[in-house]
Amino acid sequence: MADAKKQVEQITSQEKDFAQWYTDVCLKSELCIYSGVKGFVVIRPYGWALWENVMNNIDARLKKMGVTNVAMPVLIPEHLLLKEKEHVEGFAPECAWVACGGDDILEDRLAVRPTSETVFCDYWHDVVHSYRDLPQLLCQWGSVVRWEKETRPFLRTREFFWHEGHTLHATPEDSLQFTLDILYMYEDFIQNDAAIPVLKGKKTEKEKFAGAQATYTVESIMKDGKALQSGTSHDFGDNFAKAFDIKYLDKNNKLTYATETSWAISSRIIGALIMVHGDDRGLKLPPHLAPIQVRVVPIRMTDKNNVDKANEIYNNLKKAGIRTDIDLSDKTPGYKFSDCEMKGIPIRLEIGPKDIEKGVCVLVRRDTGEKLDVKLSELESKIKETLVLIQKNMFEVAKKFLDDHIDVALTKEELISKMNNKKGFIKAMHCGCEECEIELKDETGISSRCIPMEQEQLSDKCVVCGKPAKYEVIWGKSY
Amino acid sequence: MADAKKQVEQITSQEKDFAQWYTDVCLKSELCIYSGVKGFVVIRPYGWALWENVMNNIDARLKKMGVTNVAMPVLIPEHLLLKEKEHVEGFAPECAWVACGGDDILEDRLAVRPTSETVFCDYWHDVVHSYRDLPQLLCQWGSVVRWEKETRPFLRTREFFWHEGHTLHATPEDSLQFTLDILYMYEDFIQNDAAIPVLKGKKTEKEKFAGAQATYTVESIMKDGKALQSGTSHDFGDNFAKAFDIKYLDKNNKLTYATETSWAISSRIIGALIMVHGDDRGLKLPPHLAPIQVRVVPIRMTDKNNVDKANEIYNNLKKAGIRTDIDLSDKTPGYKFSDCEMKGIPIRLEIGPKDIEKGVCVLVRRDTGEKLDVKLSELESKIKETLVLIQKNMFEVAKKFLDDHIDVALTKEELISKMNNKKGFIKAMHCGCEECEIELKDETGISSRCIPMEQEQLSDKCVVCGKPAKYEVIWGKSY
Repeated sequence: MADAKKQVEQITSQEKDFAQWYTDVCLKSELCIYSGVKGFVVIRPYGWALWENVMNNIDARLKKMGVTNVAMPVLIPEHLLLKEKEHVEGFAPECAWVACGGDDILEDRLAVRPTSETVFCDYWHDVVHSYRDLPQLLCQWGSVVRWEKETRPFLRTREFFWHEGHTLHATPEDSLQFTLDILYMYEDFIQNDAAIPVLKGKKTEKEKFAGAQATYTVESIMKDGKALQSGTSHDFGDNFAKAFDIKYLDKNNKLTYATETSWAISSRIIGALIMVHGDDRGLKLPPHLAPIQVRVVPIRMTDKNNVDKANEIYNNLKKAGIRTDIDLSDKTPGYKFSDCEMKGIPIRLEIGPKDIEKGVCVLVRRDTGEKLDVKLSELESKIKETLVLIQKNMFEVAKKFLDDHIDVALTKEELISKMNNKKGFIKAMHCGCEECEIELKDETGISSRCIPMEQEQLSDKCVVCGKPAKYEVIWGKSY
Repeated sequence: MADAKKQVEQITSQEKDFAQWYTDVCLKSELCIYSGVKGFVVIRPYGWALWENVMNNIDARLKKMGVTNVAMPVLIPEHLLLKEKEHVEGFAPECAWVACGGDDILEDRLAVRPTSETVFCDYWHDVVHSYRDLPQLLCQWGSVVRWEKETRPFLRTREFFWHEGHTLHATPEDSLQFTLDILYMYEDFIQNDAAIPVLKGKKTEKEKFAGAQATYTVESIMKDGKALQSGTSHDFGDNFAKAFDIKYLDKNNKLTYATETSWAISSRIIGALIMVHGDDRGLKLPPHLAPIQVRVVPIRMTDKNNVDKANEIYNNLKKAGIRTDIDLSDKTPGYKFSDCEMKGIPIRLEIGPKDIEKGVCVLVRRDTGEKLDVKLSELESKIKETLVLIQKNMFEVAKKFLDDHIDVALTKEELISKMNNKKGFIKAMHCGCEECEIELKDETGISSRCIPMEQEQLSDKCVVCGKPAKYEVIWGKSY
C-alpha cells in the first residue's frame, strides 16, 4: 500500500488549505493541467468527458424546450459592443482585442467573444420581421475569453466553456416566463444530475448582469462555506431590442420591440462538483455525470484467470450500458484503488483469485467507502441499484451541509459576528439600496447571493441601515 | 402555386451561374446568413443541426477508435507558433493577432487558433514521459480563424468549424498506420453517410500540409467539375517532436522522439453536400445526415380532421425514431412543397382530405421527385425502406457523375485541351517535381489533387516534361 499512500499524500487536506486542496484535486485527478498560455488551462480527456456529460444532459433538456443550436462569429467588432451602454461598460475592460488580421490593420477592433448578446441581436435585426418569426429560442455551445487577472482552474480562467442561450420573444411576459423556465430547468439539472442543492432567487440591482432588467440565479454552497453561482438566467426586456432596433409586426400590424433573454451554465459547474462533493481522497462524482461509473480492478495481474474474469465482468457491464472501464496497468492494487478514489469513480469493483473461488467480487462505494461482497450472478442489478443509491446519497449529504450552513441575522453586529465565526450563508432582511450592500461588502467581504424565490419575513428592518426592509436576502462570501 | 414558383425563381440555376446558385442555396435553405462581421457567417439552426449530425457521426467513430476529446487554449502565443519553421511560414500570414488583453499590452502576441499542433505539442512535452503514456489519441471540436481575403459560406470563411485530431505515437510505423486508419474512416463516413464518392490518395510535396512528412487526402468532385478536399490526415513523423522536444523512455529505457499525426474534416463538408447533391430546386440531403428526414404537409389547414391526421402521422413517425417535422404554417401547400425541396428534406408526406378518405398519404422523394400513394398502415416501414433507397441512390448518382468526369491525358496538349473543353478531373503521369506542377498551375489553373492509393500505369512519361514518370496523379481545378 506504499504506492497508494504516496499518491494520497500528494494532495493537501481540505482542513489545512482548501484552495490548495482544490488545485491538487484538479491536477491529480487529471481533469486539467496548466497550459503554456498564461491564464489558460488544458482540459484533459477526463475533464472533457465530464464536461461532455454536462453538455449532453443540458442539450437534451434544451431541445425538449424547443431550443435550437447556432453558431455566431467568435470575433465581435467593437462598434457592436458599444451599442448597449451598460453592457459595454461591463465587458470592454476584460476583452482580448484583435487589432490585426493577416496583413490588415483593423480600424474597428474585434473582441474575442466575451459573451454574444450583441451578435445575436445583430442577427435578429436582420431576420426577425413578423410575429411569425417569434419566439427565437437559440443557444450556442463554445468558449468565451475574459481577461481575468487572477485565474483558477474551472473557476476563473481567461477562456471558459459554456452554453450561452439567447431568446427573443413577442412580449415582456413571454421573456420573463422563459427566463424562469430556464432557471427551473437549471435547478432540476444541478440538483438531480449534479447532486448539488441550490438556492434559487433573483439578483439584487447591484449584482445583476450588465444590461439586464432582471437576473435570476441558482447558488450553491461549497465545502469551505463559500457560494458559487452555478447558473444564471437574464431577462433583458426590450433593452437590447431598442439598442439594436429589433422590431416586429405584431398580429395587429403594429411595429413592436421584441424582448430578450440570455442564460448560461459554464464549466464552473465542474468547480462546484469538485468543491461540493470532493474529500481528502480526491473527487467524488455523481453517477449521472461521472465519465466512468464503474472501474474494474483485477487484484492479481500475473494470474491469467484473474485478468480474464475481470475482463469478462468489464465487457458485460459495458454491454449493459454502464459506463465501465478496467485498470490493466502494471501498478499495484493499492495504487489503483487510490487512483479510483482520486478520480471520484462512484463504484470500484475489486476481483482477486479468492473472490473468483467464492463467485463474488468486492463492490466499493466511493461516497461512503462501504465494501460489499456481491455475487457475480447479481452484479449488474446490484450495480444499477447502487448507482441510484449513490446519486441520492450524494445529494442528501450535500443538502444537509447546505441546511446546516445557513444561519439568520437580525442585526449587523450579529451578521458580522456569525460571518467571522462560522462558514456558510446568512439570511437577513434588506432595504434594497445599493449603499447597504456596498457597506457590508467593504466591512466583511460578503455579497448578496440572491433574493430567494421563497421569501421569509425574518424582521421588518434592513439588517444594515435599520430602515424598512423590502425583502429577505441570502448573504455569503463567494467565488 | 404562385407562391411556390416565386420561391424557386429566387434561386439562380446551376447552368446559368454555379457560384451564384451555391450562394442562393446556402441562404434560401437557411443554412447560414452573412453576419455583421466581415468574412464571418452565422450558421443558422438548420445549418447547425446538419453540422451536429456530422459531428455526432464522426465523434462516435472516433470514440470507437479510442480517441478522446480535450480542449486546448483558443489563443496561441507567437513564440509557440515560431517553433516549427515550415508550420509558422504556412500559418503566420493568415493569423488574427490579439495584441492587448484588458489593459495589458502583450509582449508575446497571441494568435486566435488557426490550427493547434503547437499547443498539443506543448502539452505533450509536459505530460508524456514513458512508453506507458503512448499512444495519445486526442481530438478537439471547435472553430479556427484564418484571415482569408475572399470568403464564401462553408468553403472559405474567416472562422470555420471542424474537429482537429492530434495523436502521438511510439514509432514512425504507428503514426503512419494511424494516419491511414483515419483516412479510411473518413472515406467510409463521406461515402456511406454523406453519400459522396471520394478519391483517396497522398498529396504531392507541393500540396502537403505545412510541417508534415506526408499528407493523405480524400477528394470529391462537385457538380461544376471542381474538386473539394473533403478530409485530410497528416503524418508528421518526428518533425514537431524535435521542435518541441517530445521524448519518452521506451521499454529499453532509451530516450526516443515520439511521432505525431493530425487530421481534420471541417464544415467545408457542408459545401460538398450542397455542391454534390443539390439542384435547381435547392439542397438534397442524404438521409443519414439530414436534420429532418421526413416533413409532413397537411393540405387543407382549415380542415381540423386533416390537421389532426397530419399531427397523428407526425407523432407516430417521431416515436418510431424517424427525424420528422410538420409544417403547420399558414403558407400555401405549394409554398410548403417548395420549402421542403429547398431544404433538401429526403421525404415529403402530403396528406389531404381525399387521401384520408382513401387511407393513404402521398410520399414524395426529394432525390428522384417520384410520388407514391402509401397506405397509412404501412407508412412507417415504407418510409424506413425509402430512406435506405434514397441514401443508396444519392451515392450511386454521385458516383456515376464522378466516373463520367475523370479522363486521361498522355500529353500536356491533351491535358490542356481536355481541361478547357470539359469539366472534371484528369489522370496523368507525373515526374514528381514541383516545377511541373507550378507550370501546369500557371498555364491552366489546375493543381494536383492526389497521388491515388490505387495506381495505374498510364504511360511511363511525365505529362508535362516528358521525363520518366514517378506516379499517377489526379489533376483538377479546386475550391
